Amino acid sequence: MPKSRTISIGHGSGGQLSNRLIRDVILRRFPNKILHRLEDSAEIKLNTKKYAFTTDSYVIDPIFFPGGDIGKLAICGTINDLVMKAARPLYMSFSMIIEAGFSMNELERILESAARAARAAKVDIVAGDTKVVNKGKADKIFITTTGIGQITFPVGARRINAGDKVIVSGMIADHGVAVMNARLNLGLKTAIKSDVAALDPAIDLLAPFARGIKFMRDPTRGGVASVLNEIIENRSLGIILDEKSLPIRKQAVAVCNILGLDPLYVANEGKMIIVADRMCAERVLDRLRRHRLGRHARVIGEVVESPEGVWLKTAIGSIRPLLLLEAEGLPRIC
Amino acid sequence: MPKSRTISIGHGSGGQLSNRLIRDVILRRFPNKILHRLEDSAEIKLNTKKYAFTTDSYVIDPIFFPGGDIGKLAICGTINDLVMKAARPLYMSFSMIIEAGFSMNELERILESAARAARAAKVDIVAGDTKVVNKGKADKIFITTTGIGQITFPVGARRINAGDKVIVSGMIADHGVAVMNARLNLGLKTAIKSDVAALDPAIDLLAPFARGIKFMRDPTRGGVASVLNEIIENRSLGIILDEKSLPIRKQAVAVCNILGLDPLYVANEGKMIIVADRMCAERVLDRLRRHRLGRHARVIGEVVESPEGVWLKTAIGSIRPLLLLEAEGLPRIC
Repeated sequence: MPKSRTISIGHGSGGQLSNRLIRDVILRRFPNKILHRLEDSAEIKLNTKKYAFTTDSYVIDPIFFPGGDIGKLAICGTINDLVMKAARPLYMSFSMIIEAGFSMNELERILESAARAARAAKVDIVAGDTKVVNKGKADKIFITTTGIGQITFPVGARRINAGDKVIVSGMIADHGVAVMNARLNLGLKTAIKSDVAALDPAIDLLAPFARGIKFMRDPTRGGVASVLNEIIENRSLGIILDEKSLPIRKQAVAVCNILGLDPLYVANEGKMIIVADRMCAERVLDRLRRHRLGRHARVIGEVVESPEGVWLKTAIGSIRPLLLLEAEGLPRIC
Repeated sequence: MPKSRTISIGHGSGGQLSNRLIRDVILRRFPNKILHRLEDSAEIKLNTKKYAFTTDSYVIDPIFFPGGDIGKLAICGTINDLVMKAARPLYMSFSMIIEAGFSMNELERILESAARAARAAKVDIVAGDTKVVNKGKADKIFITTTGIGQITFPVGARRINAGDKVIVSGMIADHGVAVMNARLNLGLKTAIKSDVAALDPAIDLLAPFARGIKFMRDPTRGGVASVLNEIIENRSLGIILDEKSLPIRKQAVAVCNILGLDPLYVANEGKMIIVADRMCAERVLDRLRRHRLGRHARVIGEVVESPEGVWLKTAIGSIRPLLLLEAEGLPRIC
């Protein structure tokens, strides 16, 4: 290990470097069981009832992108982390760090967009903070949101078993593709927009199948492949994805090819992975597809006893491993 | 109004500019009663019980200062916002935005210090996030913490009446003086350290006097004078402070004189203002003084019917107004 260890961009990427930072540097200093579960939301007990509690800082670049902006993202992203614990969002906080010289008009657009997203999800922003730092000491605006929601039914990676089906709620990679196209000013003629959306309707949609739903997670930083790797960590299980069944736009594949990105590792902001008992997977799929947020939902894979790890069965029938990357290739994607 | 309106450093200062940004730009987009109360913590109801919920972003410069660092500050500051609502801290989140190239050793020191502060206050850090941005896109490290606590007795500015006493729990201005001395590298020979501390012991200390305690707030950004202005806003009340009774170190006065700062507007991070019924003020004071956090507690003023506004009765007996400043002079003090 070099004497002068420093934080690198990869430490925030959602790959193995992030994982090691979290495990080796952060977690051992905060030794409580809830945090160590490393779920999208913490499960806390208040007055005998179970609540989900989650926080995220948003540093996306650019702050305005096709399909959304940092304000909408900061609300939807945190709502989604609650929803992935089957928690109905109740209250949120909204804290901004703004660079001096930032445009008041842009701030107003961002706040407007955040407010609209919160209203749509019927969640109240009840706490906030505003800090301003000198020009050059932050990049335009960073937003941190924290949410509380009431858990409606239990889900968790520990409930996953061999035989379960892996469902994705729609087209993958749109968010990452749209943001990279905007950031790099590629000018690629693509109509792809970020899928940023609040997934709170999923709670009522999925409640009838609660007993068969094992696990839910939104594949943001690190994409679908990273999420699947995380959920079978420390389990003697494997997941086999079927490439042919992956819902993805041709245009997204084309942009990923140009950028040298694997769409399975590209961030989504309005999609969810659901692991469901095989007995109810088809009914879950059917229900999802009748909602605008799940129109392109598909079963994309299956949990198996062996081989362990995450695997992709390609279109021509070969099998390749989907590893957790050292550092995922898209910094500041959320 | 100029066509190109921008955010200035004063918008984050805790003065009138901050207030206008919050009222005119932020609040009107989030129209819920809880947020509009603008208290240190939001009061939320979960399953019939009352909880306090609060968030703050910490951007202090320098990140290490005499008496503490940004990690300790991020825990204590948010704990204190809960305590000011007489809420017992239960859970917190801890989210970091780190500049690439930041020293891992310094990160570890900061986390260690945050963990120690959380442990001492018996609060669990149950959720977190880590984002990394490129070098030059943030200033070392920013931390946002959010806390939940259970409210033990009701307090609020609306309970304040003429005749109430204003208590401060100890020496004022230490935090601001220590940080400015460190930041400006003044090399002033002063032993003054930041007073950063978690005030959670105040809950049990003050519980016996709950009926007589009207209001509590920690005078951070904007100092004692700004807090007192805020609490009588929209009320037909005045507050008269007695300069002779203000607890402040001679050294702090000296540094403030050199820097051209008014100690009444300088930030504190381990002190509280308590407004108490005059019948119990002396007993509250007595109790505070027997605790290490309140050894230098004093009654510093009184709430009056007139004149309205906040006033200082100086040592020589003249009266001068303590206005809410346009922009308080110390950016990035927390």
